[in-house]
Amino acid sequence: MKQSYTTPDVSVDIVLLTLDEGLLKVALHQRDRAPAKHSLALPGGYVHVGEDASLEATAKRVLLEKTGFAPRYLEQLRTFGGPARDPRGWSVAVSHVALIPHAELSAAGAGVFQFYDVDDLPELAFDHAEQVEEAVQRVRNKASYSTLPCWLLPESFTLTQLQTIYEQIFGEAVSRGTFRSRLGIKVAELQPGDAADEADILIATDEFQGGNQRPARLFKVNRLSLFKRAFW
Amino acid sequence: MKQSYTTPDVSVDIVLLTLDEGLLKVALHQRDRAPAKHSLALPGGYVHVGEDASLEATAKRVLLEKTGFAPRYLEQLRTFGGPARDPRGWSVAVSHVALIPHAELSAAGAGVFQFYDVDDLPELAFDHAEQVEEAVQRVRNKASYSTLPCWLLPESFTLTQLQTIYEQIFGEAVSRGTFRSRLGIKVAELQPGDAADEADILIATDEFQGGNQRPARLFKVNRLSLFKRAFW
Repeated sequence: MKQSYTTPDVSVDIVLLTLDEGLLKVALHQRDRAPAKHSLALPGGYVHVGEDASLEATAKRVLLEKTGFAPRYLEQLRTFGGPARDPRGWSVAVSHVALIPHAELSAAGAGVFQFYDVDDLPELAFDHAEQVEEAVQRVRNKASYSTLPCWLLPESFTLTQLQTIYEQIFGEAVSRGTFRSRLGIKVAELQPGDAADEADILIATDEFQGGNQRPARLFKVNRLSLFKRAFW
Repeated sequence: MKQSYTTPDVSVDIVLLTLDEGLLKVALHQRDRAPAKHSLALPGGYVHVGEDASLEATAKRVLLEKTGFAPRYLEQLRTFGGPARDPRGWSVAVSHVALIPHAELSAAGAGVFQFYDVDDLPELAFDHAEQVEEAVQRVRNKASYSTLPCWLLPESFTLTQLQTIYEQIFGEAVSRGTFRSRLGIKVAELQPGDAADEADILIATDEFQGGNQRPARLFKVNRLSLFKRAFW
């Protein structure tokens, strides 16, 4: 029953984003073979039909094999396809967007991948610039009404660190009052284990960070609440 | 440079939705061959690498060939892939969601396709039930913060008709006041050509519908504003 005419090649590309030096950055490597030899490109690879259980499994395998990174957050972005995006012929790229906290970058072997500021991209191979642009737009839009930035946080964090993550994603400062009212954060009389926000995601710990004068409370993310929140 | 190992089959499936008899409905047909012979299924087809300029072009060609419908609105939903979704082997289905106003249905030859209530679906072939569920969720979520329902309207319409479309998508009634405040609609002192809503999408015409007592003004959609609105 298999179709006899040519089918397109299917690959998975990943726009892997992190926050580094206050900037939203994407992982790129220089291609060592044609097509687009020496061009900068996203990590990507073909589906292995004997091995991969799903497109998400392909994306995770490719990321781990090529970059050494296991992303904290991974979702499908959009599928790009057409006769002209790759000189080898009609091709389909199932594009994904992944987020990884900066703290986890140094633990992994980055290998040949380096991180580039998404707002100051060099020229990229294939339609990879378009993929990065769409991924960044998605992350910035979702950040404004969802808990997505929490996936970029370390295990525990202060509310000021959380605010900084939001500011870095959007590339602009926000007042502490605006930030806290947008997320419905109230810190008065918080006890360890209490949620600080309306969505029950930011859980107060009994640990504090900083000097003796005004130590800042550390928070953890309630992953169950995080998963429950619809991202769409 | 082409990979020598097997590549997955790539097809495009379309969840074509309309409003009919007050219900959100999806186009299905009974398959006339294996696999899943006699099961109800979405319209779908393979990419024709010599013919299709993009995945969207594939979706439009398949819809027109199989159902006779040219959708008013079409977007990618998500790409489904894995070894088990089709007995013929590892397959990838680039799923799309399409909307068509009910008024345009009778004009086209529906052929073997019939429309089924999305909230009371029969058993479907492959992972098509999952695709319908995700498409309906997408449409309902987007309807709440976007202009997506406008794509289901006839050329001109009353504000009551627009409200009915929203109610049918969500499957629940809403008060006129709530509806109008949610869309920022103000009708006082409207002149033909004026926008009735904050997003400048609902443009007043000089035509009215209904009896002599309280005729209702007809509106048209400003398609430029509609396109400008980000859907993401």
